[in-house]
Amino acid sequence: MSTVKFTSSDIADLPRRFRARLINSLSGFKSANLIGSTDKNGVFNLAMVSSVVHLGADPALIGMVMRPRVAGMAPRDTIVNIENTGVYTINHVSGAMLPAAHEASANYPSDTCEFAATGLTPFFPNSGFAAPAVAESPLQIGLKLREIVPFAVNGTEFVIGEIVWVRFAEHALQGDGYVDIENLGSIAVSGLDGYHNTTLLGRYSYAEPNEAAEKLPPSGTPNEPVVDLSAYRERKQSS
Amino acid sequence: MSTVKFTSSDIADLPRRFRARLINSLSGFKSANLIGSTDKNGVFNLAMVSSVVHLGADPALIGMVMRPRVAGMAPRDTIVNIENTGVYTINHVSGAMLPAAHEASANYPSDTCEFAATGLTPFFPNSGFAAPAVAESPLQIGLKLREIVPFAVNGTEFVIGEIVWVRFAEHALQGDGYVDIENLGSIAVSGLDGYHNTTLLGRYSYAEPNEAAEKLPPSGTPNEPVVDLSAYRERKQSS
Repeated sequence: MSTVKFTSSDIADLPRRFRARLINSLSGFKSANLIGSTDKNGVFNLAMVSSVVHLGADPALIGMVMRPRVAGMAPRDTIVNIENTGVYTINHVSGAMLPAAHEASANYPSDTCEFAATGLTPFFPNSGFAAPAVAESPLQIGLKLREIVPFAVNGTEFVIGEIVWVRFAEHALQGDGYVDIENLGSIAVSGLDGYHNTTLLGRYSYAEPNEAAEKLPPSGTPNEPVVDLSAYRERKQSS
Repeated sequence: MSTVKFTSSDIADLPRRFRARLINSLSGFKSANLIGSTDKNGVFNLAMVSSVVHLGADPALIGMVMRPRVAGMAPRDTIVNIENTGVYTINHVSGAMLPAAHEASANYPSDTCEFAATGLTPFFPNSGFAAPAVAESPLQIGLKLREIVPFAVNGTEFVIGEIVWVRFAEHALQGDGYVDIENLGSIAVSGLDGYHNTTLLGRYSYAEPNEAAEKLPPSGTPNEPVVDLSAYRERKQSS
């Protein structure tokens, strides 16, 4: 079994698209999310993003990398909308909605509503929150913009949002707070265009030095304080 | 099927560990990587990180979120080592090496070598590159530090590195540059402690407005320029 190795100068010399696919594959599996936003004319926008990452739990913060805004080229609708309105949604992509979600990554004109173009359904589960969620998505998050951090190194921008609300099916929430996103049907991304279902190998107990970690039971960590979910349950007609 | 919804004030009132598990689950699937570094005394360090994200292909840049450095508490070995030496490695975690990799997330003293503690094997496939790779890992990347960007919002730091070299089994590299990381055995992470194998749903062709995308053949996009891999193949004894 032979091994290939690419050095920085090898990488610089590769054909452009080959290099893009290679380098996009290297970070490992990624999240698959649709970002929902509203432009200044009230047109809804959807964009597929694979760079959403956890940033902190208290306050609850999520970050994502946005590609550079290039002078003289079409603006990146999502980041402009987030700047203008201060709010957006992050919606997990499931296998069932994948063809439509992938279609949202096409380069539509700014005045096109990607919901209409892809057949996905805008949804507003939180009154007064102006950005559209995706009804077909199994886990939807509403966020308010906290900060946009430009990365001088290549012109990408890191958008940091604070969670205003989050909703998903109750059966996926385990007793200790873990959300079983595999059970929700959320998928993973590889490279620029690979999409994957997952199979749980296990949850592992908190690692202690010189002790083998154990697999957790399906209900989560034992002896955690039980949270009464009735206070967070939505009425059926709104789900 | 009932739905739960948590608002920002609900989240603030949750028990601390419940909240941490909940919020860590929301961003979607994550990459599983071991970060290899060397401290100023030559001790090798390993840390499990699930926040590695693609940042750019030309130059080839990868970012990762590091938790805050808290005054009066033990320093975060990895980021201190990266600052001191300017280099580090990112190593995909496979299912086979998962128990040892999870154990590397335990809180060892700074002078402990996590390779020795976990049984993983340090490996230096690129002469003159001071940070250890993980021999058991199916995809290993050597990086040089480009920038550390602090996020004022919560004290986390974003470490940006440029790829110096990358190596993996040749059979995983498709004709158009896509690396089949599922074939390499790389796994995905959910929440704080869930690990998953993956099953490819498909690669999808580049999305065009108002056209259904097609699944790509296993060999990747047709009609791409063929790259001669012989120049990048390692001699057998070094693999």
